[in-house]
Amino acid sequence: MELLLNKLKGRLSDAQVSTNQTVRELHSKDETYQQTSLPDIVVFPKSTEDVSHIMKVAQEFKTPVTPFGVGSSLEGHVIPYQNGITVDFSLMNKIIEIKESDMLVTVQPGVTREQLNKELKNYGLFFSVDPGANATLGGMAATNASGTTTVKYGVMRDQVRDMEVVLADGKVIHTGSSAAKSASGYHLNGLFVGSEGTLGCFTELTLQVYGIPEHIAAARATFPSFTQAIDAVTTIKQAGIPIARVEFVDEESIIQINKFSETDYPVQPTLFLEFHGNEAGLQADIDFTKEIMKDHECEDFVFETDTAARNHLWDARHNLAYAYIHDHVGKKMMLTDVAVPISELANAVTFARGELDKLGVPGGLLGHVGDGNFHALIMIDMENAEEVQKAKEFNKKVVLYALERGGTCTGEHGVGVGKKQYQQLEHGPALDVMRQIKKALDPNNILNPNKIVEIE
Amino acid sequence: MELLLNKLKGRLSDAQVSTNQTVRELHSKDETYQQTSLPDIVVFPKSTEDVSHIMKVAQEFKTPVTPFGVGSSLEGHVIPYQNGITVDFSLMNKIIEIKESDMLVTVQPGVTREQLNKELKNYGLFFSVDPGANATLGGMAATNASGTTTVKYGVMRDQVRDMEVVLADGKVIHTGSSAAKSASGYHLNGLFVGSEGTLGCFTELTLQVYGIPEHIAAARATFPSFTQAIDAVTTIKQAGIPIARVEFVDEESIIQINKFSETDYPVQPTLFLEFHGNEAGLQADIDFTKEIMKDHECEDFVFETDTAARNHLWDARHNLAYAYIHDHVGKKMMLTDVAVPISELANAVTFARGELDKLGVPGGLLGHVGDGNFHALIMIDMENAEEVQKAKEFNKKVVLYALERGGTCTGEHGVGVGKKQYQQLEHGPALDVMRQIKKALDPNNILNPNKIVEIE
Repeated sequence: MELLLNKLKGRLSDAQVSTNQTVRELHSKDETYQQTSLPDIVVFPKSTEDVSHIMKVAQEFKTPVTPFGVGSSLEGHVIPYQNGITVDFSLMNKIIEIKESDMLVTVQPGVTREQLNKELKNYGLFFSVDPGANATLGGMAATNASGTTTVKYGVMRDQVRDMEVVLADGKVIHTGSSAAKSASGYHLNGLFVGSEGTLGCFTELTLQVYGIPEHIAAARATFPSFTQAIDAVTTIKQAGIPIARVEFVDEESIIQINKFSETDYPVQPTLFLEFHGNEAGLQADIDFTKEIMKDHECEDFVFETDTAARNHLWDARHNLAYAYIHDHVGKKMMLTDVAVPISELANAVTFARGELDKLGVPGGLLGHVGDGNFHALIMIDMENAEEVQKAKEFNKKVVLYALERGGTCTGEHGVGVGKKQYQQLEHGPALDVMRQIKKALDPNNILNPNKIVEIE
Repeated sequence: MELLLNKLKGRLSDAQVSTNQTVRELHSKDETYQQTSLPDIVVFPKSTEDVSHIMKVAQEFKTPVTPFGVGSSLEGHVIPYQNGITVDFSLMNKIIEIKESDMLVTVQPGVTREQLNKELKNYGLFFSVDPGANATLGGMAATNASGTTTVKYGVMRDQVRDMEVVLADGKVIHTGSSAAKSASGYHLNGLFVGSEGTLGCFTELTLQVYGIPEHIAAARATFPSFTQAIDAVTTIKQAGIPIARVEFVDEESIIQINKFSETDYPVQPTLFLEFHGNEAGLQADIDFTKEIMKDHECEDFVFETDTAARNHLWDARHNLAYAYIHDHVGKKMMLTDVAVPISELANAVTFARGELDKLGVPGGLLGHVGDGNFHALIMIDMENAEEVQKAKEFNKKVVLYALERGGTCTGEHGVGVGKKQYQQLEHGPALDVMRQIKKALDPNNILNPNKIVEIE
């Protein structure tokens, strides 16, 4: 350990290498119920060269390395179960370049999505991917994050043009180029995005950004039942309306929103919607959507006309997980995260609702239903072994239901440790291919070991 | 060879295994200038089990295997330079399932894009990716094909939800699921799409399809110079107009179109455009586009109002390569295929134009300029060694120009053998990562060997 520290300090300053207990504890957990585990050392690189040095030292000592953004992961991705070195990217938080005319931005991995959007606003641009947390862009790439706008703009993987990645042996590669499309070589962008720190550390990202739409309209629609709300979304999708956001929030979650965000939204199954486009086209989309809503017995379709009310709506939605956490002090959050084909969505939500009712713990349903992705968010008492066990069984039932219908165990939160047990079932022999790739690129299994795939 | 044939016939019928000279010759080339090479055997599998059997036999004999669609590749992808077995997928050409409500279709790899679209039309749906050739969907996935609609709907990789793939050892995997998004495991869809037969044989594809747009408007816009045309496209992109197609065609190519497709389009630098959407929104997009065109001194903006004229416009565009071939009997086609960031496009096209003028062989410029991707199409006399050499040097100059500006050597045609020489320069040390993946998944290097990456 002393030798390892000395080698690290061969390049890094004392301030960049910490074994302080508080610092280690801050890097021992994420935002969920997962078991914590301490890193031995936390390092704070300032450059690609720092990260390359760290990886070379780690390789020499065969020490596990866990990359860390802000710790907002939801399946234990950043928890270092084999201890070792945690690489905290908070000092690599510069926006390197905004190429307005190419709609591209190059950032360091520690830049957060809100930090980026604040800067982009000056250029009339925005970055589309918006998970609930103010996550780092490096972390969002590591988990292939998505959010409320994915239904129109796509997931994190769709935005990544190029990444600079430090490999297990300290070598530095680029995974793509600045071209809008390419058929050159294997698709390393796609492979590294979503690799959850198991294949390399991201040190620079070139991302696609968008012009702030000419017109934006946001609305809330309430329904007598959640199945009617979900059916309305399915119809909107099938009609090909290019909706920019369509979020489902159930009654329990509306209660949490009203408490935490000081709103007075009706306590009913609700859709939050947003439309982007030119004024005329948007109005036609809204008119068509209204008709569909009516067909599904929508009771109220309220537009948030001023910008402040619209922003408040989406802030409230983004803060929903924190609302639950805030209202249930001492409990821990668990989230299901399945995505199913859109034709299976109403049944899948009905199934989850039924199982949630049986469970008898605080929680609700919410999600990015336009992508067939929804969450059951539950708050559990980790001291109550029976409750924890039941919660895990609930999660499992929802996953198995989705997998049997051609879905996925995780639409956007990633595998980490929480969804590792379902990888074999979901991927079958393809999991061996993933394992072969992992072994080829990280033969000593030091990069976030045993996340996604277990290496014997 | 006798033993190998017998082993293949252990499962395949005599009609499925051919050593006929004519059949071998049909599988010795693609549509371009690349050197031909004969396979020893051509097999025609009818099922995944057949393909698995073929791979197991090939593995036992360490015989190279080259998957083959219709042979419309443009960089020699399907030419078996190490001979061995060519797997022709023409008997696996069934549309397995159309899941209307999920906008998904499952097909065998030998289904062609026109075959699929003909069937989808009955459901009010269409498949978006449209390379010039009536390629197979397996081949299009293998090369990550794209086309005129990519600017709106994305490349082949964006449409693939899942593939069934037979690996080098005959094992069968699925690369994805039917969910619209997923953060589960490494992104094998992305890795296998564009792998050009070097990582596995595709035996089934589940693809995203789209509703035929409510309204479609197509137009031709002519400009005094090609730089004004390109600048207009750059402005359209930067304005965020969701244009569905925007193709550049230069004067030489218009001449070819007029001859081959019996049109009388003005012989000027031209943009072919298409807009998809609801009527009101589309009209607003068109009005905005017209203003931009005017700013760039567009001389004529002609709408193709009836469906027949619109279809003829796009057929003419799709047949452009065949028009050149038809008009230059005895010559072979070479295409450059770079893509650059949109801000570099006008300069890149100017550079290519200048070099093309110096070259003095028949040819023209065309391309999917909304993606920053364009082609110089040239017809060369393969008997004239000096001309061939000069043509290759021209191709190289265009590639180097693009790479120096953050572009790619191939926007959509793929690497094959034609672009292999640029892989090291484009990808640098990332090429080693690709090589490690190839070695891990195909340790005996039997799958389309030495395409994309050379294995020592």
